[in-house]
Amino acid sequence: MPKISNKGQQMPASPIRKLTPFAERAKSEGKKVYHLNIGQPDIETPAVMLDAIKNIDFKVWAYTASEGTVSYRDALTDYYNKLGYNISPEDILVTTGGSEAIIISLMTCLNQGEEVIIPEPFYANYNAYACQSDSVIKPILSVIDNSFALPPIAEFEKAITSKTRAIMICNPNNPTGYLYSKQEFEDLKTLALKHDLFIIADEAYREFCYDDKQFFSPMHFEGIENNVIIIDTVSKRYSACGARLGCMITKNKEVIATALKFAQARLSPGMVEQIAGTAATIYTPDSYFTEVNHEYAERRDILVNALNQMEGVFCPNPGGAFYVVARFPIDNADKFCQWMLEEFSYDNQTVMLAPASGFYATPGVGENELRLAYVLNKPDLKKAMICLEEALKVYPGRIVTVQNEIIHTN
Amino acid sequence: MPKISNKGQQMPASPIRKLTPFAERAKSEGKKVYHLNIGQPDIETPAVMLDAIKNIDFKVWAYTASEGTVSYRDALTDYYNKLGYNISPEDILVTTGGSEAIIISLMTCLNQGEEVIIPEPFYANYNAYACQSDSVIKPILSVIDNSFALPPIAEFEKAITSKTRAIMICNPNNPTGYLYSKQEFEDLKTLALKHDLFIIADEAYREFCYDDKQFFSPMHFEGIENNVIIIDTVSKRYSACGARLGCMITKNKEVIATALKFAQARLSPGMVEQIAGTAATIYTPDSYFTEVNHEYAERRDILVNALNQMEGVFCPNPGGAFYVVARFPIDNADKFCQWMLEEFSYDNQTVMLAPASGFYATPGVGENELRLAYVLNKPDLKKAMICLEEALKVYPGRIVTVQNEIIHTN
Repeated sequence: MPKISNKGQQMPASPIRKLTPFAERAKSEGKKVYHLNIGQPDIETPAVMLDAIKNIDFKVWAYTASEGTVSYRDALTDYYNKLGYNISPEDILVTTGGSEAIIISLMTCLNQGEEVIIPEPFYANYNAYACQSDSVIKPILSVIDNSFALPPIAEFEKAITSKTRAIMICNPNNPTGYLYSKQEFEDLKTLALKHDLFIIADEAYREFCYDDKQFFSPMHFEGIENNVIIIDTVSKRYSACGARLGCMITKNKEVIATALKFAQARLSPGMVEQIAGTAATIYTPDSYFTEVNHEYAERRDILVNALNQMEGVFCPNPGGAFYVVARFPIDNADKFCQWMLEEFSYDNQTVMLAPASGFYATPGVGENELRLAYVLNKPDLKKAMICLEEALKVYPGRIVTVQNEIIHTN
Repeated sequence: MPKISNKGQQMPASPIRKLTPFAERAKSEGKKVYHLNIGQPDIETPAVMLDAIKNIDFKVWAYTASEGTVSYRDALTDYYNKLGYNISPEDILVTTGGSEAIIISLMTCLNQGEEVIIPEPFYANYNAYACQSDSVIKPILSVIDNSFALPPIAEFEKAITSKTRAIMICNPNNPTGYLYSKQEFEDLKTLALKHDLFIIADEAYREFCYDDKQFFSPMHFEGIENNVIIIDTVSKRYSACGARLGCMITKNKEVIATALKFAQARLSPGMVEQIAGTAATIYTPDSYFTEVNHEYAERRDILVNALNQMEGVFCPNPGGAFYVVARFPIDNADKFCQWMLEEFSYDNQTVMLAPASGFYATPGVGENELRLAYVLNKPDLKKAMICLEEALKVYPGRIVTVQNEIIHTN
């Protein structure tokens, strides 16, 4: 029997999905499982986007241009220029989801074994994209006690080698929800120019910024036009994860021309998605985002307040996205998550969570942290928080810190 | 300014699309251009498939399972088992087009620098998939005078090295239209078992077999279950190229589990496409395929007859797909194709063709061959043939063979 490749063996399985069999068993036993583990929003897709699908009037479902349709790239250009990106349609490559945009960017910019610096914790699938593109992630620790702000620039400087080609930033951040400041981008700009690095900015959660905080993009800074690549997707903006419609944006002509060759090989992004994406981009009313942001901000407040009221739990109050990473008084987050599904129930309910360890590249870090996505309606979110609090009271691996001493309890 | 990667530089630009600027200029000058260069059929997508899009009734456009929805994989299983593949839904991974299925298969099966043997001429994008996956294509020449049949097994044996991991076959073939016989697959089976190789069979054109010839798949042969990977797509079957909906099929459990890891990284195939694909698979009436096949067979006859009546032209009569590769009395196909667009017109019309050289890996082969796709309606196809015949009469690089001597004329 022929063998599979080394890369195939090394590809990481999704750390978020590995608990799924336990969740399925819990459900088959009749337990209600609250899913705080995934980034699939329950928010409705804008009606104008779904109507565009229902109103298609073509006879042949044909390829589009590999770079995306003119209509969609024109609509996107207007959208980005309202945000101050100052781009033209030629700077956009439409991709099959943000995932494809990241893989193409890494293949375009990094040789085998070259390095991309990413503050950890980071979106777990970045590990898979690095593996697939033969690039190497150099993590730099951002810490929960500092709300997961950008690590000091000195730490970046220490991590830069002759193999470093790029810095990747997810803003607002998945998994931490941290929203990077103008000063943090100024620092990154200085660093990128000094060491001639690409800045790859994953802005999937751009629309979700709270407390009137301002969103900044490296596209807002002058003098780094040839260094910046933006990753985007309609998945979260329009709650349309299943559309698989993303894009990459760069003013670097060589990068976009090279990325187009990878795009030509896979022929075209989806045609119906681009029709729907065009309609969503042009016609989604501002009120849609106002309402969705209001909803998410309320959920965040419920979640963060409830978590910080639990004994021994600490959760920063993030400025964006719809995730938090919180610290729990537990011995091991993987064990805790599995125990929640296999052994615990409160009123025949339990909660599915994502261990934060899967979001760190450095072994052993984040073992008492969990990522929680607030993608449930408020009543369910409140029930999930009660359930989690009860679980912490009886979890056998609970750890209590008394005057800097760690003791096991339960 | 940071540099792009070596792989980015090495990625081939699409040889089929490189003539596009000349075609656009011809059109802007008012010339009618008949496109025989592309594989985008003009056939209508089945109404049941488009109706499924118009009738969507979900509120949240969500991710599906990375391996595809249960409904779609169940429908596909029935479809393949009617063809005698004897598979179960677990053997199917739904992909974003056949392209993704090929890239994932190569990444799963081949280490960097390992080799896949492919009879040439072959689909030009295979070069891009090999580049992207760091694998190496070893071409074996199939010849026009033998209608592009499978090269002798002795040629395969000669090409096999310690690095050979797979043989890839496109059946019916793009670009030649050749339909492989049962005996040819028996030979490939013996070879694959002897050398422990994967057989990757791209069956995108399965539905298009003419003259009552039978279609064979490596799935029809026993004893090679762990060696076989099938690549498929709805692009040509339902004239739905823009759906970007394909799949890979294998009974090799290790291969499918590994491929799933690559699929999990990109999260999910399109949701609407899978709804449409399910409807098309279950409800497309047999009459759709009967009519489409009848239409294509008639077009093929028009094309092949017209070509063989042109002085100095030879075109085999292929058993499937909707392409032919024909030999022309010309000095250089690239030059000829460009000349057709830039300098020639007949009754203010011209024809866009694909030089066959882009489908060969061996330099210098196929320089007097063209690939023609019969994706135009019959009246237009006839006009295109008249136009081509007139062009050959006046092309300055025409070559006439007299008693085995080649002389330039015009």
